[in-house]
Amino acid sequence: MTESSPIDTKADWWRQPARPLDHACEQRARERQSQLTKPPGSLGRLEEVAIHLAALQHNDRPRLDKVQISIFAGDHGVVAEGVSAFPQIVTVEMQRNFVNGGAAISVLARQLGATLEVINAGTFAVPAELSKVIHEPVAQQTHNFCEVEAMSDAQWQQALAIGYRAVQRAQQRQAQLFIGGEMGIGNTTSATALLCALTGLSPQDITGAGTGLDSSGIEHKISVIEKALTRHQALLQEPAAVSRALGGFEIAALTGAYIAAAQVGIAVLVDGFICSAAALCALKLNPSIRNALFFSHCSAEQGHRKVMAHLYAAPLVDLNLRLGEGSGAAVVVPLLRAACALHNEMATFAEAAVSGKSAPASSTPGDP
Amino acid sequence: MTESSPIDTKADWWRQPARPLDHACEQRARERQSQLTKPPGSLGRLEEVAIHLAALQHNDRPRLDKVQISIFAGDHGVVAEGVSAFPQIVTVEMQRNFVNGGAAISVLARQLGATLEVINAGTFAVPAELSKVIHEPVAQQTHNFCEVEAMSDAQWQQALAIGYRAVQRAQQRQAQLFIGGEMGIGNTTSATALLCALTGLSPQDITGAGTGLDSSGIEHKISVIEKALTRHQALLQEPAAVSRALGGFEIAALTGAYIAAAQVGIAVLVDGFICSAAALCALKLNPSIRNALFFSHCSAEQGHRKVMAHLYAAPLVDLNLRLGEGSGAAVVVPLLRAACALHNEMATFAEAAVSGKSAPASSTPGDP
Repeated sequence: MTESSPIDTKADWWRQPARPLDHACEQRARERQSQLTKPPGSLGRLEEVAIHLAALQHNDRPRLDKVQISIFAGDHGVVAEGVSAFPQIVTVEMQRNFVNGGAAISVLARQLGATLEVINAGTFAVPAELSKVIHEPVAQQTHNFCEVEAMSDAQWQQALAIGYRAVQRAQQRQAQLFIGGEMGIGNTTSATALLCALTGLSPQDITGAGTGLDSSGIEHKISVIEKALTRHQALLQEPAAVSRALGGFEIAALTGAYIAAAQVGIAVLVDGFICSAAALCALKLNPSIRNALFFSHCSAEQGHRKVMAHLYAAPLVDLNLRLGEGSGAAVVVPLLRAACALHNEMATFAEAAVSGKSAPASSTPGDP
Repeated sequence: MTESSPIDTKADWWRQPARPLDHACEQRARERQSQLTKPPGSLGRLEEVAIHLAALQHNDRPRLDKVQISIFAGDHGVVAEGVSAFPQIVTVEMQRNFVNGGAAISVLARQLGATLEVINAGTFAVPAELSKVIHEPVAQQTHNFCEVEAMSDAQWQQALAIGYRAVQRAQQRQAQLFIGGEMGIGNTTSATALLCALTGLSPQDITGAGTGLDSSGIEHKISVIEKALTRHQALLQEPAAVSRALGGFEIAALTGAYIAAAQVGIAVLVDGFICSAAALCALKLNPSIRNALFFSHCSAEQGHRKVMAHLYAAPLVDLNLRLGEGSGAAVVVPLLRAACALHNEMATFAEAAVSGKSAPASSTPGDP
């Protein structure tokens, strides 16, 4: 059985449990790994990936041929505080660059043969030429969360549902892997505030340069985040309220997408710092989704390593990336595909008539 | 200029310098990276890879479409000391598995569209059906280096030349990347002895389980290596003598291949523990080749991390692999290809009309 399950359409859909792992598939995949022509365990993390995907996909020969990459764009009221090195117009300009094929994620999606879709979850300006963008704006931007909650509850539900619909499309395309990406000037500030609120880490611990602040810019960003955390202190025990008060439309859409993907059994490859904030919101809202999440890379953004440790997550690579757009996850897809190909296509000791460990060739070929 | 240079054919060919880097190409590649639509530096190590390949390939738009993977197989006299968990016949059986498509490296080569060739550099038994293997055996196996030198000087030169010819074939195929792999029961013992001799690290520091020794097996392997190092103590100051006394035919072939590839300007992606021993021999013989070597992964084999530190090498990934066959290098090729694709295909700020850092969109589009 490899088909994903239908998405639950109730209003509180995001509280529904993730599709369970299939432990029989997992066990068969583990046995197969022990029979392949290699010393046991010698493919390291690639073995673990294949076995885990087997359990998640309910298929002891897991596949990742079809990949959907959904980039959610959103603008942030908090940029009024002067927290980004780039002007806000870039959120829109980069949507054009995504769909025109010139952005990093566009190049990587082509290389992977992946579906790339760009969703405007709420950005400040929308040039008419962006007809290839899926327009589902919640508003032009979030409120400045130093002053009020970033969004209302209705807006938050709407943003979560944007992610839900992206996963519906992934399911219609029979995607076996979902990558969420984000674009939003100011969104490392929102992500950092979310992570502080949900982990107890301090802004001093995890605030970084984003797209390129200098040290005084980072100091200012820390003070903005501290102000926001103080402003919303009464809400910090409740994950939905945190996500609403300090988040962004694109971050909430990612949160919704991660939950929906786990509910239907589509594997998720989480990108870097901002996506990890969205994933942590998703995990706090619905802890059952943990097994659907693969963490792709350790970002160069200050603090991502601490967040990965908090999540007990071991990212697959550490290449000093800090671009966002889902690019770090896309870079890692070939490693997951290699894991599947090795698992599915390698010969067993018996098939190849190769002698196993400590066994003379003539007497027991095929003994691992 | 992207063509590689002709191989020097003198007897002492391995002493000739590597092709120099093209620093003008490097500079143009660096400038291009600063103009692409991303925060400067945000693609981390992928930027460094693209810039370094530009210098190495003498092409500011580097490419890695054509990859040659050459697996060298050799048998080791030292297996008489009982240093491997697998029987010696596996060296031959795995050559059959490589050419029949069932081994890990066979699967990965198919995935990459890479040329895979298997070279018998000297193995104990050669079944008649191995017609797809390139047969260039130096001898049936090396001598047991606990007793005498593993090979004569003539045999060592012959083994180096096997690697040289593999690179000639890569050049004829216009390969832009060379991966060497190895297969040889007993060869972690040979590689460990080489590394101890050339780095001063002790057998206690870097001797590991190979294909699967238990702790008493590892203790025995350490004592065998200590015996060999004592036996050949008088030679340890001279890299060629070390390579000859403690090496293997397949390891010397790799050493020759790495030198030849650097001489003609073909990038080399070094696999794990045994290939690193071959690379260290090559670097000691001819330090000019350093810039041609990319180190692919940090192996799970005990001691590889220490060897990487000794070489000031920062492998690109750390996935707990310890299979050999060139498999760890092959897994990393898509990361290098992603680096090239991003470098070559991303739009610049000017091309995409995206605003740069701290610049309002209307006044200075294209300012990074």
